[in-house]
Amino acid sequence: MDMEYLRELLNNVKNGSVSVDDALKDLKKLPFEDIGFAKIDHHRNIRNGFPEVIYSEGKTIEQIKEIVKKLIEKNNNIMATRADKKVYEGIKEIVGDAVYYEAARIVVVKRREILKSKKTIAVVSAGTSDIPVAEEAAVTCEVMGNVVERVYDVGVAGIHRLFAKSDVIMKANVLVVVAGMEGALASVVSGLVDRPVIAVPTSVGYGASFRGLSALLTMLNSCATGIGVVNIDNGFGAGYLAALINR
Amino acid sequence: MDMEYLRELLNNVKNGSVSVDDALKDLKKLPFEDIGFAKIDHHRNIRNGFPEVIYSEGKTIEQIKEIVKKLIEKNNNIMATRADKKVYEGIKEIVGDAVYYEAARIVVVKRREILKSKKTIAVVSAGTSDIPVAEEAAVTCEVMGNVVERVYDVGVAGIHRLFAKSDVIMKANVLVVVAGMEGALASVVSGLVDRPVIAVPTSVGYGASFRGLSALLTMLNSCATGIGVVNIDNGFGAGYLAALINR
Amino acid sequence: MDMEYLRELLNNVKNGSVSVDDALKDLKKLPFEDIGFAKIDHHRNIRNGFPEVIYSEGKTIEQIKEIVKKLIEKNNNIMATRADKKVYEGIKEIVGDAVYYEAARIVVVKRREILKSKKTIAVVSAGTSDIPVAEEAAVTCEVMGNVVERVYDVGVAGIHRLFAKSDVIMKANVLVVVAGMEGALASVVSGLVDRPVIAVPTSVGYGASFRGLSALLTMLNSCATGIGVVNIDNGFGAGYLAALINR
Amino acid sequence: MDMEYLRELLNNVKNGSVSVDDALKDLKKLPFEDIGFAKIDHHRNIRNGFPEVIYSEGKTIEQIKEIVKKLIEKNNNIMATRADKKVYEGIKEIVGDAVYYEAARIVVVKRREILKSKKTIAVVSAGTSDIPVAEEAAVTCEVMGNVVERVYDVGVAGIHRLFAKSDVIMKANVLVVVAGMEGALASVVSGLVDRPVIAVPTSVGYGASFRGLSALLTMLNSCATGIGVVNIDNGFGAGYLAALINR
Amino acid sequence: MDMEYLRELLNNVKNGSVSVDDALKDLKKLPFEDIGFAKIDHHRNIRNGFPEVIYSEGKTIEQIKEIVKKLIEKNNNIMATRADKKVYEGIKEIVGDAVYYEAARIVVVKRREILKSKKTIAVVSAGTSDIPVAEEAAVTCEVMGNVVERVYDVGVAGIHRLFAKSDVIMKANVLVVVAGMEGALASVVSGLVDRPVIAVPTSVGYGASFRGLSALLTMLNSCATGIGVVNIDNGFGAGYLAALINR
Amino acid sequence: MDMEYLRELLNNVKNGSVSVDDALKDLKKLPFEDIGFAKIDHHRNIRNGFPEVIYSEGKTIEQIKEIVKKLIEKNNNIMATRADKKVYEGIKEIVGDAVYYEAARIVVVKRREILKSKKTIAVVSAGTSDIPVAEEAAVTCEVMGNVVERVYDVGVAGIHRLFAKSDVIMKANVLVVVAGMEGALASVVSGLVDRPVIAVPTSVGYGASFRGLSALLTMLNSCATGIGVVNIDNGFGAGYLAALINR
Amino acid sequence: MDMEYLRELLNNVKNGSVSVDDALKDLKKLPFEDIGFAKIDHHRNIRNGFPEVIYSEGKTIEQIKEIVKKLIEKNNNIMATRADKKVYEGIKEIVGDAVYYEAARIVVVKRREILKSKKTIAVVSAGTSDIPVAEEAAVTCEVMGNVVERVYDVGVAGIHRLFAKSDVIMKANVLVVVAGMEGALASVVSGLVDRPVIAVPTSVGYGASFRGLSALLTMLNSCATGIGVVNIDNGFGAGYLAALINR
Amino acid sequence: MDMEYLRELLNNVKNGSVSVDDALKDLKKLPFEDIGFAKIDHHRNIRNGFPEVIYSEGKTIEQIKEIVKKLIEKNNNIMATRADKKVYEGIKEIVGDAVYYEAARIVVVKRREILKSKKTIAVVSAGTSDIPVAEEAAVTCEVMGNVVERVYDVGVAGIHRLFAKSDVIMKANVLVVVAGMEGALASVVSGLVDRPVIAVPTSVGYGASFRGLSALLTMLNSCATGIGVVNIDNGFGAGYLAALINR
Repeated sequence: MDMEYLRELLNNVKNGSVSVDDALKDLKKLPFEDIGFAKIDHHRNIRNGFPEVIYSEGKTIEQIKEIVKKLIEKNNNIMATRADKKVYEGIKEIVGDAVYYEAARIVVVKRREILKSKKTIAVVSAGTSDIPVAEEAAVTCEVMGNVVERVYDVGVAGIHRLFAKSDVIMKANVLVVVAGMEGALASVVSGLVDRPVIAVPTSVGYGASFRGLSALLTMLNSCATGIGVVNIDNGFGAGYLAALINR
Repeated sequence: MDMEYLRELLNNVKNGSVSVDDALKDLKKLPFEDIGFAKIDHHRNIRNGFPEVIYSEGKTIEQIKEIVKKLIEKNNNIMATRADKKVYEGIKEIVGDAVYYEAARIVVVKRREILKSKKTIAVVSAGTSDIPVAEEAAVTCEVMGNVVERVYDVGVAGIHRLFAKSDVIMKANVLVVVAGMEGALASVVSGLVDRPVIAVPTSVGYGASFRGLSALLTMLNSCATGIGVVNIDNGFGAGYLAALINR
Repeated sequence: MDMEYLRELLNNVKNGSVSVDDALKDLKKLPFEDIGFAKIDHHRNIRNGFPEVIYSEGKTIEQIKEIVKKLIEKNNNIMATRADKKVYEGIKEIVGDAVYYEAARIVVVKRREILKSKKTIAVVSAGTSDIPVAEEAAVTCEVMGNVVERVYDVGVAGIHRLFAKSDVIMKANVLVVVAGMEGALASVVSGLVDRPVIAVPTSVGYGASFRGLSALLTMLNSCATGIGVVNIDNGFGAGYLAALINR
Repeated sequence: MDMEYLRELLNNVKNGSVSVDDALKDLKKLPFEDIGFAKIDHHRNIRNGFPEVIYSEGKTIEQIKEIVKKLIEKNNNIMATRADKKVYEGIKEIVGDAVYYEAARIVVVKRREILKSKKTIAVVSAGTSDIPVAEEAAVTCEVMGNVVERVYDVGVAGIHRLFAKSDVIMKANVLVVVAGMEGALASVVSGLVDRPVIAVPTSVGYGASFRGLSALLTMLNSCATGIGVVNIDNGFGAGYLAALINR
Repeated sequence: MDMEYLRELLNNVKNGSVSVDDALKDLKKLPFEDIGFAKIDHHRNIRNGFPEVIYSEGKTIEQIKEIVKKLIEKNNNIMATRADKKVYEGIKEIVGDAVYYEAARIVVVKRREILKSKKTIAVVSAGTSDIPVAEEAAVTCEVMGNVVERVYDVGVAGIHRLFAKSDVIMKANVLVVVAGMEGALASVVSGLVDRPVIAVPTSVGYGASFRGLSALLTMLNSCATGIGVVNIDNGFGAGYLAALINR
Repeated sequence: MDMEYLRELLNNVKNGSVSVDDALKDLKKLPFEDIGFAKIDHHRNIRNGFPEVIYSEGKTIEQIKEIVKKLIEKNNNIMATRADKKVYEGIKEIVGDAVYYEAARIVVVKRREILKSKKTIAVVSAGTSDIPVAEEAAVTCEVMGNVVERVYDVGVAGIHRLFAKSDVIMKANVLVVVAGMEGALASVVSGLVDRPVIAVPTSVGYGASFRGLSALLTMLNSCATGIGVVNIDNGFGAGYLAALINR
Repeated sequence: MDMEYLRELLNNVKNGSVSVDDALKDLKKLPFEDIGFAKIDHHRNIRNGFPEVIYSEGKTIEQIKEIVKKLIEKNNNIMATRADKKVYEGIKEIVGDAVYYEAARIVVVKRREILKSKKTIAVVSAGTSDIPVAEEAAVTCEVMGNVVERVYDVGVAGIHRLFAKSDVIMKANVLVVVAGMEGALASVVSGLVDRPVIAVPTSVGYGASFRGLSALLTMLNSCATGIGVVNIDNGFGAGYLAALINR
Repeated sequence: MDMEYLRELLNNVKNGSVSVDDALKDLKKLPFEDIGFAKIDHHRNIRNGFPEVIYSEGKTIEQIKEIVKKLIEKNNNIMATRADKKVYEGIKEIVGDAVYYEAARIVVVKRREILKSKKTIAVVSAGTSDIPVAEEAAVTCEVMGNVVERVYDVGVAGIHRLFAKSDVIMKANVLVVVAGMEGALASVVSGLVDRPVIAVPTSVGYGASFRGLSALLTMLNSCATGIGVVNIDNGFGAGYLAALINR
């Protein structure tokens, strides 16, 4: 039931071809259906040029191909996250021009132009093992129409490496900071800038890192202000939030 | 906006006093307002004779009195949980015939008759320290129209005490089992009956009971079937769920 | 030893063919054997038409086949949960007409008619990855004689999808809500209905979901009333409890 | 050492009154002192009209008064968080026109005009016990120059209350969602909008809420996209981040 | 209902004064009542001369006095644990010759002679702060008829102090080892002897001792064999178990 | 250095063949070497006929064979725990008459007669999945000279099965209770007897059992007295402790 | 029993006034008494001029006074940690010249000169609330003969403040870093120096700091090398370890 | 930008070839670049003869070979930790004289002489399963120029084995103690010496060892003074810290 249907219903009430009682019965179901509000949900991605997103983990290649087939009919942009090479090859069978960002484990199918943001997002990461998560964030930002500056391997144990990139860091409009182990980078970066920082703890580490818990707690307890935290290894979520902020 | 308003709107569309476009604009707001569905929410307690519930903890006496004043206008039954004596005295200033169930820490104001259930609910508890939570469950059941059989102090360390009450336990339609420390009672009771058991872990215990975590985990991992678990010390929630089942 | 045996024993005491001392010796063993009470346990499933349940995980195919062989002699209904294809094939060698519910990972052998309940159980699930657990609950309910309505993929992030199914949800007598990640669906569903909700947290998620802990805590702390929680991924337990309530 | 000093030093090198070696020695200390970069830190609040913030908890009234005395000399705006009435009275002795936001536990001293943002921030909270944290966020936003719309007491157990405020929610540029217990509100709100949501878990609840852990995990594991999480009860941090985003 | 009753019943059946049907009705209740087996439970303490135990924490003085009054009628030994001075004074009003072991927080009322064990129990503790728990264990052992050797303040950080007491340690039949903080003493003691060691973690410590969790885990993971662990601070439980072993 | 050596040394001092200074130098090393006390450690197993124990997990077959070779020279009994079939075959190459207890995952090499205890140990277990741990305990007891009564598959969800074995349970001198999931069996058994109970939590279960944590906490918090707990899945430790008690 | 006694014993054996058997009996007790090795323990503090340490928390003023009385007899230096004003006043009654370091909560009694170390220890702390723990570390170092440089309030959120003190930091021989909340300071400091860093997590923070757990995990997972961690709030332990390293 | 560049800049300002404004612009970037301070970081390893360290886990052989290629150009010592045989073979293709310490899982390439320390480091470990971590620490110490004494398999359950090595332990300048399971060894060793002890918990154990958590907590809560703790299994970190202390 959409606006057109609703208008037709009201016209029918007006011209007497539908009784008030029948119209009432029909309208009673409205809140749980899809007028306007729900539509916004369905259509907002398309309006923004945002991609439809498929979380590949735990889905079979066949399931993913089926979903891609349906989405491609709407001529929409598509992004499959946590995608290994087999996922890419499966999607490519359906859509020949799918592009694979291997480091980010993301497959992208582009059908519509994306509105470009004028301000940059900086994606900053601590160690080389954090790069897959950082790339997931960076590519997500790019697919959503942002210019991304990557500042990698600048962990706090050698803080001069971070400072050598201060120009990039200080001119960014939004920052995504990705760090495992002790996750201290988010606090240091946030102390240098006065822009929003999205912090992504990673599961990089061993022993008392408890698969990312250590970095997660560090980021939540930061003494710096202006930090929002996402789930462990959730590069996509951080990139998406950064893109929302940067519009 | 209610059904009457909606009927009027449609009539106005029909007779031309409201244009289709204006009606559309009005209807667009519907899903977020309260036709029908939301109404059900507002009115379901009244229809069932269920009480309005006030969780007293963390509220001042003045706040509680203010809420009671508003609720009493609707001539509804009221139940204040986690209520100490001061809460009772505060409510009594507003409603002279408020009744205080001290062991259950519940104040009840009765204004409407409650539909009585024909089947009984058994409230079973392990130790004497579990009684406040058990009473919270039992009185909640009673206020919601149920006959309650109390079987207290029948912990598994002296299992013959439980068996001495087997008649009561086996004829109940629903059972609420309240236990702290190791919380094993729920498994044993559930193994004896083939009716739903609502298990309430309590924070009774010390050391490795971790304020109820031990009993909670025990109940969630029960090898017996037919057990639903509620939050630690949540006697009210268990009583409410048992009452829903027993209708 | 059952009532008939007991009556015979007493008659024998009465007519002198058994001495009081011998009868005493026999009776002394009673509490730990099976008069009445224990019998109920042994026989209750049969009386209810409830199936005997085999938890397949951690058992070899040979062990499962052995158990099925014994149970089939009693001409009882049988249900094997957490059963992969090999378990099904093993059981089929014993019982040719065993049926495999693949999505639910359940094998069913039907020998007796099950008493049908007149009221429906709704099984509601959040994401597609929650479906195996939801199906385990749904098939369990069906095998125990219930009509089940499935409402899948209605997670709270797109709440209009849930509302589109409000008719189904609101007419159910009992609801099973299955959700991983943040598990918020149980609270929202419970807020819409005034019937018992059995909440099943799933281990779907990553990072700070801590293999289902996040969803479990969410469900235990629900601000909605009328929710009983079962163990993580325990679709069978939820279905069994729902079936007990729905009788 | 600031830019003026640096310019003078260079001029002195140029005119020969300081030798190159002495200038080198002086410059060597630069990176760890405060040219430019550090200044930005010191001055950024002033430039933005942002207040200097005092976290009152764990400080004596005397300590707080001392800090206020120093800050007031710079003629800056000041904000004291987690401030009880005694803190307010202490500050008032120093600054007569200090304003106390009791519900938010914030004292504000205003000395400079704050740049106003044109877009609104919505602060949404679940229960009445969450209001102190919500107010901390709301007042922080206001003190930093934002228009705030408050949407309180709209927990997911009665989701129609949230929908009744959909207009406010959908027109906000940034949203702060405050919820304790199961914390599900953040997911539901984020599913309704396509703007950044800052989620604040609160320590409201008991038992298995583990003083806010339950709500924290819920928010981190949200199935909705576009959510950044701050520490438990950190209304100030959420408000500050929202204000940064809303500039 | 006891053996005598049962014999009488059978005799009545035999002589016709009770019908078989009435006898059956009577016998049906047997398993859940108290023939033999349950009796043992009721009477075993008396037979052993073991005291009846009252856990004082969370009980009012009035409740404790009431319980003591009832127990004293049976002329049994009584032991109240976790008893502060007020508990002692309350009990003394009822039983003039109650004895207070202040360091152990135990009140003892002695009415029957206790069977003495010939072998000694050693109670070994690490630090001075562990003494209340150690004394609870020691006095429990003594009240149950054992000779106790106390070896206090012999923590592993100064292991020569422990070795100076090797004679006492090596001639004990059972050992209770009480330690907080890192709880390493149990492993060291168990490595020195070939007798059962009951380990009691205490909540002594701060920070990462997590109120006894650290010592608890240490004791459970001991590389030494022959250690059984009880709950944190459970001196009574350890003493009771040691006394059972030492009989 | 042993007593004989010491006597010789003193004799040499006496007859002047060793100077006082040289003897002093020699004696100074005593406390850290092995007079008497340490010897007891080395020899106590042999004197008791207790086996030398090899924990196989994490050792290569070659390492285990090497250890067996050395131990066999002393003509001692040997027991290898957590031993799979390959470990058994490896040991058999060294010692032809090694015996494999497959269910217990234990290999035994017998060289000396073991002193038999007159009293029995009961090993009680809840579910079939707990049997490997139960068997580890039972075989350990047997290898150490005890008569073991096995009472398996008597979980609390069908408590009549436990009671049917009450004769066995009540005549045991020590009891080992093995249970996973909610681990309630230990409390129930301990409530039935007045003998020491060694409780072994197992990692059997899923979800909120957290690999044995649930059963562990249950056993530590038991409301029954006389229970000592060992590490999760530590059947050997429980058997060893039971054997020490049963001597 | 000391070396002199031992020499005398041997002389007596030599000259026949003690028999070999009697000497043997005497020597047998040696390992568990105190020759040499144990003496080192008793005397090492005195030799080093290190103070005897009293942990005041959980001790009564009377107990502390008693301990001081005994220690003062040996004319040794004394240090009481976690000492509030009342502890100080109590000690002062015994020793008139006791000195109270209020910020450090330490009372010092000086009787012997302490060997001074030539190299400095830097104590670095993040926030003002961390100062009590930092002072505990600093005063401990000083009492043990070290020159301490304090670098306070240099948290990573304003990293230029830390760099402004780089001279002090880089010339220290050992560094103690004290930080609560996210505890990131230890990593940053350790990255700047190539000397040992002792990291002290503090319980400063709220919510997900879990009373110091967050800072503790951060420090254990540091990506910087050369960090040793002590217990939460253990300023004394850190100072003691730093002093050992700095000798 | 280095000192030479800076001198040139100043000379150019002096001789007028660069304007003061241009110089100012250049100098403004200084703090984030690398004068002096940062250089120290780059060069400190070379000056000390310390190796460059590669953490092999999570890196491909190709990545490791690439890193080695770059490092070898600087003619520096290299150490690859957590290296299996394939890593060694890969490095050997690049550097023919690479040496593999298999037990320590470390590959070493030596190019410069390392300054030798005169004092020894003792590496003490509890069980045979702890040896890989102990060897990682020991080899790290050796590569950094230290003499290491290994004292293995001296767990506290047989404490005489530890005492038999007291000479080695007591003459060490620094001690690294490696222990899993209950980790009690660190406390015992630290109680015997008055030198710094670096404690390394290992993940050796099962059940309630929670992969090293038990040993970690034990070490953090040690009642002995002078212990610094590193992450679980972090042999390299412990060795590095010990080497820093021992210089």
